Amino acid sequence: MYPDIDAAGLKGRDFLSTQDWSIDELNALFSLASRLKADRREGVPTRLLEDKTLYMIFFDSSTRTRNSFETGITQLGGHGIFLSPDRMQISHGENARDTANVLSRYGEAIAIRHCAHGEGNAYLSEVAAHASIPVLSMQCDVYHPCQILADYLTIREKLGDTKGLKLGVAWTSAPNYVRPISVPQSLILMMPRFGIDVTLAYPPEFRLQPEIEEQARANAAAAGATFEVSHRFEDAFEDADVVVPKSWGPLIHTQDHDEGIRLIESYPDWRCDAERMRLGKDHMLYMHPLPADRGREVTDEVIDGPQSVVYDEAENRLHVQKALMALTM
Amino acid sequence: MYPDIDAAGLKGRDFLSTQDWSIDELNALFSLASRLKADRREGVPTRLLEDKTLYMIFFDSSTRTRNSFETGITQLGGHGIFLSPDRMQISHGENARDTANVLSRYGEAIAIRHCAHGEGNAYLSEVAAHASIPVLSMQCDVYHPCQILADYLTIREKLGDTKGLKLGVAWTSAPNYVRPISVPQSLILMMPRFGIDVTLAYPPEFRLQPEIEEQARANAAAAGATFEVSHRFEDAFEDADVVVPKSWGPLIHTQDHDEGIRLIESYPDWRCDAERMRLGKDHMLYMHPLPADRGREVTDEVIDGPQSVVYDEAENRLHVQKALMALTM
Amino acid sequence: MYPDIDAAGLKGRDFLSTQDWSIDELNALFSLASRLKADRREGVPTRLLEDKTLYMIFFDSSTRTRNSFETGITQLGGHGIFLSPDRMQISHGENARDTANVLSRYGEAIAIRHCAHGEGNAYLSEVAAHASIPVLSMQCDVYHPCQILADYLTIREKLGDTKGLKLGVAWTSAPNYVRPISVPQSLILMMPRFGIDVTLAYPPEFRLQPEIEEQARANAAAAGATFEVSHRFEDAFEDADVVVPKSWGPLIHTQDHDEGIRLIESYPDWRCDAERMRLGKDHMLYMHPLPADRGREVTDEVIDGPQSVVYDEAENRLHVQKALMALTM
Repeated sequence: MYPDIDAAGLKGRDFLSTQDWSIDELNALFSLASRLKADRREGVPTRLLEDKTLYMIFFDSSTRTRNSFETGITQLGGHGIFLSPDRMQISHGENARDTANVLSRYGEAIAIRHCAHGEGNAYLSEVAAHASIPVLSMQCDVYHPCQILADYLTIREKLGDTKGLKLGVAWTSAPNYVRPISVPQSLILMMPRFGIDVTLAYPPEFRLQPEIEEQARANAAAAGATFEVSHRFEDAFEDADVVVPKSWGPLIHTQDHDEGIRLIESYPDWRCDAERMRLGKDHMLYMHPLPADRGREVTDEVIDGPQSVVYDEAENRLHVQKALMALTM
Repeated sequence: MYPDIDAAGLKGRDFLSTQDWSIDELNALFSLASRLKADRREGVPTRLLEDKTLYMIFFDSSTRTRNSFETGITQLGGHGIFLSPDRMQISHGENARDTANVLSRYGEAIAIRHCAHGEGNAYLSEVAAHASIPVLSMQCDVYHPCQILADYLTIREKLGDTKGLKLGVAWTSAPNYVRPISVPQSLILMMPRFGIDVTLAYPPEFRLQPEIEEQARANAAAAGATFEVSHRFEDAFEDADVVVPKSWGPLIHTQDHDEGIRLIESYPDWRCDAERMRLGKDHMLYMHPLPADRGREVTDEVIDGPQSVVYDEAENRLHVQKALMALTM
Repeated sequence: MYPDIDAAGLKGRDFLSTQDWSIDELNALFSLASRLKADRREGVPTRLLEDKTLYMIFFDSSTRTRNSFETGITQLGGHGIFLSPDRMQISHGENARDTANVLSRYGEAIAIRHCAHGEGNAYLSEVAAHASIPVLSMQCDVYHPCQILADYLTIREKLGDTKGLKLGVAWTSAPNYVRPISVPQSLILMMPRFGIDVTLAYPPEFRLQPEIEEQARANAAAAGATFEVSHRFEDAFEDADVVVPKSWGPLIHTQDHDEGIRLIESYPDWRCDAERMRLGKDHMLYMHPLPADRGREVTDEVIDGPQSVVYDEAENRLHVQKALMALTM
């Protein structure tokens, strides 16, 4: 029924960043995701991973990530085990090597969410180095690749061919806590590879990791697309086809929490509202990975309005992750 | 194999209170519950919800509720995801609307337990308003409809036709914590609709919500049954066929916890013992939703004695909930 | 496909200690474990417990135990429910009798891990007394029978016939916390029954329960094997075929935590290193149930070296527990 799965040659592959996968491999994933989405809509069973086990290790809590992965593996006929380190013996000094080796003997994949700045990606990489089964990122301090897969599928579904589209990625102010930088970093890395022109707008203190911005620039150049950084909020909106206004912390500038909150509060006008939405093309999509800080990041009018595709975007987490699991496990 | 499921026309229906369902609908549920119970006893597979996902959101802990729902969905071939808000992004400001919309895109039903006085039912109702999949109550501050379904099935199994039976619902003293009022409220609402005469006994400070007592009276009148309130413990027992002696807090009288405990302690004699049990009919059933406060609410002699059907009652949670899921999901 | 399962006659049997099972019964389990292991390697489905539910109650956290049981029941087509008492109503005074009776009405087995000294085994025994479905130990304060099943299967796979082998069980120093005595106790109880000569080495204050050591001696005598206790670390290694160097607390000597840590710290040289490994036979296996305290209990050189079979041992937890569940549930 799904002859292309083996042809994709992705069994056993890790997925820590979209950067590690070729365009062909990513397209195989999107193609399978669309197929699985259609099958679900028609009630066709998709038991591609019968009785297989996915370990889901959450160093940080989540709604969409856990539910989309656990529901996804269920729909594929398998089982997801929800693990949090405070209930594992990781707190008794179990190292990544032991965790990787033991779980590799039991099940079929290890998914990890670990967003602690300076630690998460290192932990995922260490588990991946020792595991003989695929390690899938459910978000780290550097990347959130599954979110961006869902975003891309949503854009393609809504707007068709993505070549030449303009995507604005805009920092927003939301001072109740310091959010990770993985979403904008993953957006700017992958979107240009599909020919999308990206404008990234943030106040100076909110720059992303220099090597990530540099890679984004290289990716854009290789694909004949553009990647621009601006310190003016509106630049992300003007003439755009898609905009992702989203808060993150000044983590490259400072690790101090109070200073971070103070900086976030010093740009209260970086908020997505109807006026800014009018700067984009008429069909411009409003996207956000959720949960959004309503009233701070975005007005209710926009997030609940006709240009918002946030629930379609959330839904596509399910489909891209099912494709990811079916291809790698 | 189960042709009546579609005929019942309950796909997609919420279940927040038995009051929202007609007698015919409830009877369809009891009929399917009995069928599923028999099939389980004979080892017949009942994969009615294969690979379907039930979200179980617990704002309050539980043994019977979680295990009966999660085991039930397993026996139907589906999967239950146990969620507690402290590990979800509900604590990061995710609202009911987002939770409802996103989970509706992923799975097939949302079950919620939220007993906080003045909050639980409002939360369930808000999720139900936004969800496109059924929302099932696992107990709120106002209702505990699944418990009462199990109670009714147990009574019917033990005593046959329920018309004209007398049920006593008696408050008991159990001062270690303030319990919700949802069980007695759901009992007095549904039982009279099946022709059962209900006597509700409590000390004056432990009255239930006036509008619930009023609805119970209206339900009884419509069904040709009676509903009486007494402030004398023994009235619930005398000549009864079934008695449910159960503690609850003086929540309508006072929200103050210490005052609540003091009031509970001021009626130490409101306890079910062998002497009180002798006031009922010889076959009178002792029921309790568990966990019971042994020694305070009831003597061991009674709860472990021949009239006690507490484990049958607990078992029936499984069967009625399987029927509920099979009908709505 | 698995005709021997019914022939073994173990449906409904509890498993709290290997001592309760005959050699024939244990051999039936090992035989099925090897079969299930081979089937898994070849991708043969093993849905022996389709849609059956295993309750896993963890009073203490665990990685291997939870993941091996939950993955195991998944591979058998069933479902494991992870329960921790702080989220159950056990904390609201629910007693073992109610838990046992209610879960017996819902699912097919209850697995419990409860290591609190002086409490765990008593709790498991009480649940087993009331449950009508099998109760399986996932470790208590006295026994860790599943670990020892895995150890034995590993030894047999690596060394063939076990009669006449020498096993050293050696206490090691690891002062960061006081570990239970269940692993060495279960080792000395079961291994002699299979003809293995056991030498148990510990500093005087770290003796095991006298009745367990006595039973080990009786088991050895009945099987024509030997059981010896020594207070010299090296005695466990000399001429051995297998060594299990593992820390435990002086729990029989003192219940005082600080005194326990002080005593553990007073024997820093009781550590497994390459020098000690050279005392054994050339093929001597290094085993440890994990997590090991690297640097204190064992050097990296040994645990990551060619004689270490710790990951094979961890893997076999999966296979023996699948056999245990398939036989009893």
